[in-house]
Amino acid sequence: MTVRFGLLGAGRIGKVHAGAVSLNPAARLIAVADAFEEAASRLAAAHGASIRTIEQIEAADDIDAVIICTPTDTHADLIERFAGAGKAIFCEKPIDLDVERVKACLSVVRETKATLMVGFNRRFDPHFAAVRKAIDDGSIGEVEMVTITSRDPGAPPYDYIPRSGGIFRDMTIHDFDMARFLLGEEPVSVSAHAAVLVDKKIGELGDHDSATVILETTSGRQCVISNSRRATYGYDQRIEVHGSKGMAAAENQRPVSIEIADGRGYTRPPLHDFFMTRYTQAYANEIAAFIEAMGSGATASPGGDDGLAALVLAEAALRSVREGRRVGVDEIG
Amino acid sequence: MTVRFGLLGAGRIGKVHAGAVSLNPAARLIAVADAFEEAASRLAAAHGASIRTIEQIEAADDIDAVIICTPTDTHADLIERFAGAGKAIFCEKPIDLDVERVKACLSVVRETKATLMVGFNRRFDPHFAAVRKAIDDGSIGEVEMVTITSRDPGAPPYDYIPRSGGIFRDMTIHDFDMARFLLGEEPVSVSAHAAVLVDKKIGELGDHDSATVILETTSGRQCVISNSRRATYGYDQRIEVHGSKGMAAAENQRPVSIEIADGRGYTRPPLHDFFMTRYTQAYANEIAAFIEAMGSGATASPGGDDGLAALVLAEAALRSVREGRRVGVDEIG
Amino acid sequence: MTVRFGLLGAGRIGKVHAGAVSLNPAARLIAVADAFEEAASRLAAAHGASIRTIEQIEAADDIDAVIICTPTDTHADLIERFAGAGKAIFCEKPIDLDVERVKACLSVVRETKATLMVGFNRRFDPHFAAVRKAIDDGSIGEVEMVTITSRDPGAPPYDYIPRSGGIFRDMTIHDFDMARFLLGEEPVSVSAHAAVLVDKKIGELGDHDSATVILETTSGRQCVISNSRRATYGYDQRIEVHGSKGMAAAENQRPVSIEIADGRGYTRPPLHDFFMTRYTQAYANEIAAFIEAMGSGATASPGGDDGLAALVLAEAALRSVREGRRVGVDEIG
Amino acid sequence: MTVRFGLLGAGRIGKVHAGAVSLNPAARLIAVADAFEEAASRLAAAHGASIRTIEQIEAADDIDAVIICTPTDTHADLIERFAGAGKAIFCEKPIDLDVERVKACLSVVRETKATLMVGFNRRFDPHFAAVRKAIDDGSIGEVEMVTITSRDPGAPPYDYIPRSGGIFRDMTIHDFDMARFLLGEEPVSVSAHAAVLVDKKIGELGDHDSATVILETTSGRQCVISNSRRATYGYDQRIEVHGSKGMAAAENQRPVSIEIADGRGYTRPPLHDFFMTRYTQAYANEIAAFIEAMGSGATASPGGDDGLAALVLAEAALRSVREGRRVGVDEIG
Repeated sequence: MTVRFGLLGAGRIGKVHAGAVSLNPAARLIAVADAFEEAASRLAAAHGASIRTIEQIEAADDIDAVIICTPTDTHADLIERFAGAGKAIFCEKPIDLDVERVKACLSVVRETKATLMVGFNRRFDPHFAAVRKAIDDGSIGEVEMVTITSRDPGAPPYDYIPRSGGIFRDMTIHDFDMARFLLGEEPVSVSAHAAVLVDKKIGELGDHDSATVILETTSGRQCVISNSRRATYGYDQRIEVHGSKGMAAAENQRPVSIEIADGRGYTRPPLHDFFMTRYTQAYANEIAAFIEAMGSGATASPGGDDGLAALVLAEAALRSVREGRRVGVDEIG
Repeated sequence: MTVRFGLLGAGRIGKVHAGAVSLNPAARLIAVADAFEEAASRLAAAHGASIRTIEQIEAADDIDAVIICTPTDTHADLIERFAGAGKAIFCEKPIDLDVERVKACLSVVRETKATLMVGFNRRFDPHFAAVRKAIDDGSIGEVEMVTITSRDPGAPPYDYIPRSGGIFRDMTIHDFDMARFLLGEEPVSVSAHAAVLVDKKIGELGDHDSATVILETTSGRQCVISNSRRATYGYDQRIEVHGSKGMAAAENQRPVSIEIADGRGYTRPPLHDFFMTRYTQAYANEIAAFIEAMGSGATASPGGDDGLAALVLAEAALRSVREGRRVGVDEIG
Repeated sequence: MTVRFGLLGAGRIGKVHAGAVSLNPAARLIAVADAFEEAASRLAAAHGASIRTIEQIEAADDIDAVIICTPTDTHADLIERFAGAGKAIFCEKPIDLDVERVKACLSVVRETKATLMVGFNRRFDPHFAAVRKAIDDGSIGEVEMVTITSRDPGAPPYDYIPRSGGIFRDMTIHDFDMARFLLGEEPVSVSAHAAVLVDKKIGELGDHDSATVILETTSGRQCVISNSRRATYGYDQRIEVHGSKGMAAAENQRPVSIEIADGRGYTRPPLHDFFMTRYTQAYANEIAAFIEAMGSGATASPGGDDGLAALVLAEAALRSVREGRRVGVDEIG
Repeated sequence: MTVRFGLLGAGRIGKVHAGAVSLNPAARLIAVADAFEEAASRLAAAHGASIRTIEQIEAADDIDAVIICTPTDTHADLIERFAGAGKAIFCEKPIDLDVERVKACLSVVRETKATLMVGFNRRFDPHFAAVRKAIDDGSIGEVEMVTITSRDPGAPPYDYIPRSGGIFRDMTIHDFDMARFLLGEEPVSVSAHAAVLVDKKIGELGDHDSATVILETTSGRQCVISNSRRATYGYDQRIEVHGSKGMAAAENQRPVSIEIADGRGYTRPPLHDFFMTRYTQAYANEIAAFIEAMGSGATASPGGDDGLAALVLAEAALRSVREGRRVGVDEIG
């Protein structure tokens, strides 16, 4: 009953998933592949796994599922390949930066009936999941206004920015998925504003570092997303849902929750400073959900269509900024 | 040194200002005028003031300043009239629902050099003022993103809606002023979404009850405003300013701040349920600031130009919703 | 229907009560008496009252009630005198530092059937009153454990300490009253520990500056009081009641409730730094309750017996420290 | 470099430690012993360990350290035995219910120079540890007043109570250790009050369910402990340290930290309902500290003397209740 995993990509996020697999009693990490051999061998050793090539993992009988943590531009190819090889697939977001490429990839997934789950880890954060549960329970009535605040402690390295797809496809994409997770309806229009306020160099590289987005659904439900690439106080991750009967909110998390008071006031420590510590539990729950989906034959959620929908919203937001206007979601793709 | 006040309009907000005047040792309420005589006489009696007509107040030697709390469509006329009469003027927002009318009125004020202050009470809330002070102190560096959440406990009476000027000119106008108060730069573009989610009847009367607005300044600073005409949990009034060095936020206020814990969890009471109790201190500080401006010969702040600027943003937001597009502030007026 | 007040003592607490009377529409301050004439005349002028001697107030037809804010050693005499003169009496705590003197005074009050209220202002704080209401409502079931934290921002002047009666009779006495207000049963035994941790000079003057007290009732309900004469973070005033069905707590209050976040964390401003700003509302409610008691013919609460009971607990605590043992309340007096 | 563990006792707390060992990359669980074979085999299987008798573990060459989770009355014997066998020993609190027996046991430990750590897990809670760090950093100056609130969600089973040693030796003992951890000085006197408020049956079994304790050190530092065997709102675990320069506090933890607002107010979920989820991180850190102490040759902390000191305070508290008086710590043992 143990799911045997192959891991593709032994970088930062690969390590996170390797850790989540190791801690899950229903999972085992069998093999690690990475073009950079030292990374692969170090990670494999830490988890008692072997080093293999992608081809070997593809052909392996002792591997049930793969976790794709390679660079974004390889995701769609690898999904198609492992769908063909009959493996269940967990792929880090995004599937691809190009909407058409994602659509083509998803049609292969459909044909092969492969299990595909996309790495929107925040759905599995216990606090965010509890907000969603409050909605499902009817505790706050009909959802009306969603507010998502999402600010990184610091910007990514300059060399990453040109291949990131820009702030909307790289960072806001998580918030677009969270918006869809909470709104209960699909957004139909997008107004986005974006600017370079944190670091001019980011602007020179063709990207923005500060953005605000409104999403609106057919019935008029509204979601606001506020993003910044720099927050001195830590990794700012909050959601709030206002509904007809009430409000549900998940506040920020900090590694240590003490308070120190003196003549200057009452001070609590900064927030988590990194996604890995902030979302440790979310990553563990995510892999558990993937394993459960594999076992039950249920469609994995969030799946390929969720990955596509978030990317379409990112594309619409980018167009909204570029053209200085509200953009209909149906204008994209 | 005592400033002698005449009050025009003995309704709900008139009572609030009469109370603030009475509590201020540097002020005295001399006369009250209201078309509805019973209201005038009750309020006058409660504060030891006399009942007079508007004409009598205009001509009175024993009155230094007037507080205009009459219906909106009389504001501009009364401002012009009392500017001519040499009285200092405190006028409830808005000056008028029409931008051109406001401009004409303000040119009269300029000519007469009258002191005019506009009733954006929230600037005087001690908590919001402390956020502004943190900005001025440099505690959070350069302002980048402002978030204003402003939700009323309940919608106004149906008969008020048609003459309210709509949600943006009636309710959001406070938030537009707060945005200007906090952004440190003038907004140049507006994207607004609005819907009817609370009460269909509001839609039938031509208005919206739920709105989200993005304001952007020349340098790219962004402000989000989230409005609803109904919040089951009370009068939701929060501001948050994210800057280059940190963040400053003013949380909600409640009349009683206890917490009760049991098997269902930890519960704090609802927020204030009305603007009058929420902003009691703000109203008192506002009148004090008006008196101080009169005494010092300084320009009253917020003044007529602030009233105009907020109205222009309201107009831009309305146009953004109607035309489904981002609107430049310079398109208005 | 307006209650006409004479104020005895124009010092710090006298000013507080004069302000509360002035703001109360059912009350009017008629006269002020103080041995230090300048203080009397300044306070009288500020409130439109006249200066009179104690004798004149005693004999006055136009005065219904007195507020006694003179030094502690005059309280009992003045109560007896004004009880004899047929005035309603509001007296600052304590009635006297000596239990026997208090008992004698209260028997005069009983004979004259005078209305007597003792100034335990904290019962009228809206937050503490809401905790008591939660108890009365049954929200937390049977009261079991009460926790009172009460720390002053700073110690009183050295010259006040010798005539203060010591920390238990001067400071903890408020907490003893609060304990009785919340426990729902009378304490029968007291264990107290006290030390000099803040300022050696306080010890040299024969007093303590840091104290912890346990009160226990017949049925075993327990209350803990924690006192310090110095808190760098402000005036620390909290209560918490644990019961069979839940818990009710009133947290600290601060004049401005914002939060500023940066690399050092999230900081809220210090608490109120003085009892007068912390308990402004309590003082206003207290006078209102006194006026209501006068009007309704009800016994004023907290009355003389409450003043006595708190003093007895203070005496028991002091004996507990001096003799290093648990003391029965019935050992006192 | 991996520490090889034998686990004695496969009950509730045994499982907790087995889990902590399994998650620690520097540790491995080799063997499990339990008189109840099914418990042993289930736990052994879950962690890939073998089942062995205590004798076999004692004689084993492949075991470096033991974790003692057997019933309390076996602890001292097992410590002596494994000290003699040259194993490092982690023993759940208390070492024994009898002070003399503990002393005898510790002299064996001293003679054998065995590493002994006692399971006061709370010292390793990241939040409590951060409070201690704030003290060590000098952030709050000299420690003056410590407040420990410690309430269980529910009472233990009736059959456990007679062999628990009573509330002070079973429950408060953790708080006595925390008090010593935070006070920075040894307590010299104890005043305790205890009652039966939760469940009469607990009284019939000779124990109390509600207790309050004051500890005082030579210099007059004071610590208050408030205990109850029932809290409807969850596992209430708070510490607060007031010092000459400020205050440090660790608030309660909850599994999900959302807030839901509606007409009844703002509600956060209850606290953790069990020590195992509340202190998961503490248990992991505790085993890590034990391993580190073994490796570095440092004395394990908290060690046997800490176990003894906490037990002596429990004994003093019990005597204080029984004899209705303040008890000197030097009266014990």
